[in-house]
Amino acid sequence: MSYQYYLNIACPDQPGLIASITGAVAEAGGNILDLNQHTAVDLNMFFLKALFALPKDVTDEGDRELFELNFRGRFTPLAERLSMTWELASKDKKRRVALLVSKTSHCLYELLIKYRDGELDCEFPVIVSNHPDLSPIAAQFDIPFKVVDPLKGKEACEADVQAILEDYSIDLVVLARYMQILSGEFTARWKERIINIHHGFLPAFKGAKPYHQAWFKGVKLIGATAHFANEDLDQGPIISQDVLRVSDSASIAEFVRLGKDIERKVLLDALSLYLSRSVFVKEGRTFVLR
Amino acid sequence: MSYQYYLNIACPDQPGLIASITGAVAEAGGNILDLNQHTAVDLNMFFLKALFALPKDVTDEGDRELFELNFRGRFTPLAERLSMTWELASKDKKRRVALLVSKTSHCLYELLIKYRDGELDCEFPVIVSNHPDLSPIAAQFDIPFKVVDPLKGKEACEADVQAILEDYSIDLVVLARYMQILSGEFTARWKERIINIHHGFLPAFKGAKPYHQAWFKGVKLIGATAHFANEDLDQGPIISQDVLRVSDSASIAEFVRLGKDIERKVLLDALSLYLSRSVFVKEGRTFVLR
Amino acid sequence: MSYQYYLNIACPDQPGLIASITGAVAEAGGNILDLNQHTAVDLNMFFLKALFALPKDVTDEGDRELFELNFRGRFTPLAERLSMTWELASKDKKRRVALLVSKTSHCLYELLIKYRDGELDCEFPVIVSNHPDLSPIAAQFDIPFKVVDPLKGKEACEADVQAILEDYSIDLVVLARYMQILSGEFTARWKERIINIHHGFLPAFKGAKPYHQAWFKGVKLIGATAHFANEDLDQGPIISQDVLRVSDSASIAEFVRLGKDIERKVLLDALSLYLSRSVFVKEGRTFVLR
Amino acid sequence: MSYQYYLNIACPDQPGLIASITGAVAEAGGNILDLNQHTAVDLNMFFLKALFALPKDVTDEGDRELFELNFRGRFTPLAERLSMTWELASKDKKRRVALLVSKTSHCLYELLIKYRDGELDCEFPVIVSNHPDLSPIAAQFDIPFKVVDPLKGKEACEADVQAILEDYSIDLVVLARYMQILSGEFTARWKERIINIHHGFLPAFKGAKPYHQAWFKGVKLIGATAHFANEDLDQGPIISQDVLRVSDSASIAEFVRLGKDIERKVLLDALSLYLSRSVFVKEGRTFVLR
Repeated sequence: MSYQYYLNIACPDQPGLIASITGAVAEAGGNILDLNQHTAVDLNMFFLKALFALPKDVTDEGDRELFELNFRGRFTPLAERLSMTWELASKDKKRRVALLVSKTSHCLYELLIKYRDGELDCEFPVIVSNHPDLSPIAAQFDIPFKVVDPLKGKEACEADVQAILEDYSIDLVVLARYMQILSGEFTARWKERIINIHHGFLPAFKGAKPYHQAWFKGVKLIGATAHFANEDLDQGPIISQDVLRVSDSASIAEFVRLGKDIERKVLLDALSLYLSRSVFVKEGRTFVLR
Repeated sequence: MSYQYYLNIACPDQPGLIASITGAVAEAGGNILDLNQHTAVDLNMFFLKALFALPKDVTDEGDRELFELNFRGRFTPLAERLSMTWELASKDKKRRVALLVSKTSHCLYELLIKYRDGELDCEFPVIVSNHPDLSPIAAQFDIPFKVVDPLKGKEACEADVQAILEDYSIDLVVLARYMQILSGEFTARWKERIINIHHGFLPAFKGAKPYHQAWFKGVKLIGATAHFANEDLDQGPIISQDVLRVSDSASIAEFVRLGKDIERKVLLDALSLYLSRSVFVKEGRTFVLR
Repeated sequence: MSYQYYLNIACPDQPGLIASITGAVAEAGGNILDLNQHTAVDLNMFFLKALFALPKDVTDEGDRELFELNFRGRFTPLAERLSMTWELASKDKKRRVALLVSKTSHCLYELLIKYRDGELDCEFPVIVSNHPDLSPIAAQFDIPFKVVDPLKGKEACEADVQAILEDYSIDLVVLARYMQILSGEFTARWKERIINIHHGFLPAFKGAKPYHQAWFKGVKLIGATAHFANEDLDQGPIISQDVLRVSDSASIAEFVRLGKDIERKVLLDALSLYLSRSVFVKEGRTFVLR
Repeated sequence: MSYQYYLNIACPDQPGLIASITGAVAEAGGNILDLNQHTAVDLNMFFLKALFALPKDVTDEGDRELFELNFRGRFTPLAERLSMTWELASKDKKRRVALLVSKTSHCLYELLIKYRDGELDCEFPVIVSNHPDLSPIAAQFDIPFKVVDPLKGKEACEADVQAILEDYSIDLVVLARYMQILSGEFTARWKERIINIHHGFLPAFKGAKPYHQAWFKGVKLIGATAHFANEDLDQGPIISQDVLRVSDSASIAEFVRLGKDIERKVLLDALSLYLSRSVFVKEGRTFVLR
């Protein structure tokens, strides 16, 4: 098996982009395995995601690093000329993901079961919680479980979280029904690296008790939204959403129960998209290349 | 075929309601063909919709009216005792529905085609528009087409609409993409008798250009909402909703194009539900008994 | 809280059924809480499911049994006159469900997690498997795990299964991806009391490797089907089905992976419907009153 | 606006395909606007669809033809070396599509309304029918309506159809609920150029009365399938499918009514995919690059 790389590009649209990019990869010796691109005509922006393989004779880490250095050197002038935001990432390095939870288990279980089944291309080195309740689940899956204490105050508690994330060299934070609002400082530090699951079809039902809001409004479908967390509560760029048709005979309690299945599904989807480098953010929204 | 009646009831929940109601219908000689009920535990409200047939020996209009009078006499004390809001309606009398349109044809075509196929239990005696554009479609389906002039001012124009609705003895108004905001006086006069189609998944995208709003927010599903029109723009009780998954490669123009299929579907559904007496309104939302 | 009963009825359609039934329940002192019915016009069959509460003064087991005896005595003549198949069942007695599994865990996990969350109105006294692999999951949820040996031959192995089911006083068997074909004797003994999950959208892809069949046929949606097991492989009455849209870029391996989410969802739904007494079987198919 | 071309390629998978193809287009002066590709690992086949624009200085038909000749000359050796099946097609030439109908109007209306709204990139020069019933609809949309007589015998009738298709220089035939089985000779002559709509979720319900079959089987979702017609009834490669959840209280007549909405939607989708050159056929199935 040869080494593989993801190449992600966003830039203003213009003629000849695909040929320029695929040509540059070919010249560097890369063989494109998969390519996905689209143009957002309403913003005149172009997005491209490619997966390419290195030549078979690149077989050790040293050669791989040399290739990477060489590629960056060649590609930078093109990227500058075309005003690209771009990223080159080895497919072989698994991202380290911290799960933050409170008392509710359905999202946590979903991610852990899919992980055990080999369906998530990442590592879960640690679970962090502000309650001890889910500790037995962490134990079942042999993952360290760290409890932080919100009674210490938000600042002190977030400092503890931050320390844990650093200890475990975390790349991405997933809020799997973590029932604490994060400070603007924290979300700024982890910009576009915190995925939250909101139990409403945003932007319709921001804030607390979205299923109550939905019920009293009499909506006919309820939803959930996975998004990047930022300083505006429930306003960060949306990564994945889904809905479920509900009967008007369903109570608020049933909305809550039914909603759990959408929440876990949407959070899983958002994490998978992030891990496969499919999510671009531009002008406050995402562009997902599935 | 015997005469058939719809009986619709809303009242505070309490033990014995179903037996009391079915018993009263049976005593009056009605044979229940279909019964649908549910209790909204969060409001402690009970909703019931029944369809029943009169005895076979009721064969002329006079006997039918006598039965109806007799039923109302017997049922009223029960209804008062149990604080019911209730309605008895002959299934055989088709409701007269006015279609209000502007320049866009997809909703109008949908309703007319389904009507021609015998799938809508109503009459369409007149189409009213503030533009002459769709007149040929009305002609194709042999329905009078009346043009009103918004340049006369809202009040004068609405007076013309009102006169047409009265001329044609209209029971229900359907705004099939009618691009004029109605006054509070008009919507109050036709309370719960105007169905509007909004091209957004309410309550998320109220007001103008909902597809633009949705695109810039980066939502992953777009929707449409049919609701009763009231004085608050796009805030009336929701009757039917649906959504469609959209790709992030779709432009705003494609949102508009794709949305048309949801709009016509949702408006048709809302009208069908209204005609089959399935829609209850309570506490600002609907309860639909499908 | 008063005692509650399910009453399920299937009979040839005729005028007056709903009033007769609700009247009989009322006379016996039952208060109907929920009622769902429909008529299959193509078979002229009527189906009804009611939930009713006993009077508040019935507070001990002896009185409850007396009520039940009394109800059966009163209802039997009506049922005979109207050719009813009927069943009266206490809501308070949880059914005992055995889970049969092999090596695949996704269906097992789904049922156990929903059970732990209090969403399944039954007991899981035992898990039976022809492989030891899933034993740790049973341990996590504190449920006895019994291994049977298919190498002993089908007859001997099924005798072991039967003995376990009897030991644990099992009411219903759920095949949660149990990869052994059951004999006609076994399915006959447990008629309409074995729920199987088939990983195809029946009746399209019977037999082995349904995802392979689906891929080579080029279908655009894949599905799963939960059905009662009978002597004809994958031909028993369908209880629940769902599908998922697949891209033509998906491989067979991806069909298998994606399909797991539909399988667990559909199996859970079928079990829930069975437990809430919503499933009627007539003329080789089910009628589900949701 | 510059001239645009579709390039469609299918070939055995191998390293370097994307770079080779995009390079060849660039060398010929084409600017790739959109590119979609995937590899069917289970067949080791690669599929690619590209849309590219000619240089702005190609402004007249003569230059365009020269470009095309030149491109074919350059591309052929590459295509031969890589065992490609390939096709180059001008985006500017609208395909001429004949609609074949019988008595049912919903599919015909759907295509004509979308056509009038500018959403179908083709021409409808003629409608052919074996019944005069739908002639007024053709008149509403100003399209010639030709009646053929099945009583003449299949061979003679198909000869009349063939003559009409030739008279109107037809490229594609759409069977919009045409209730005649075509001969193997006819389907062979129009191989992969006849799209049929089948009112069942193939391969489950082949042949006559699929909704009856579905009802008696008790399926919980009904569907429709658009496919290329070939000599095996309802067995040709599937282009598009969709399903609708049905209640078990729905009758066969309701299945038929509800199914109409899926049929028209699926047929429209299949035609759109064909027109945008998104459909590849290999090994008896399609691969659709959406």
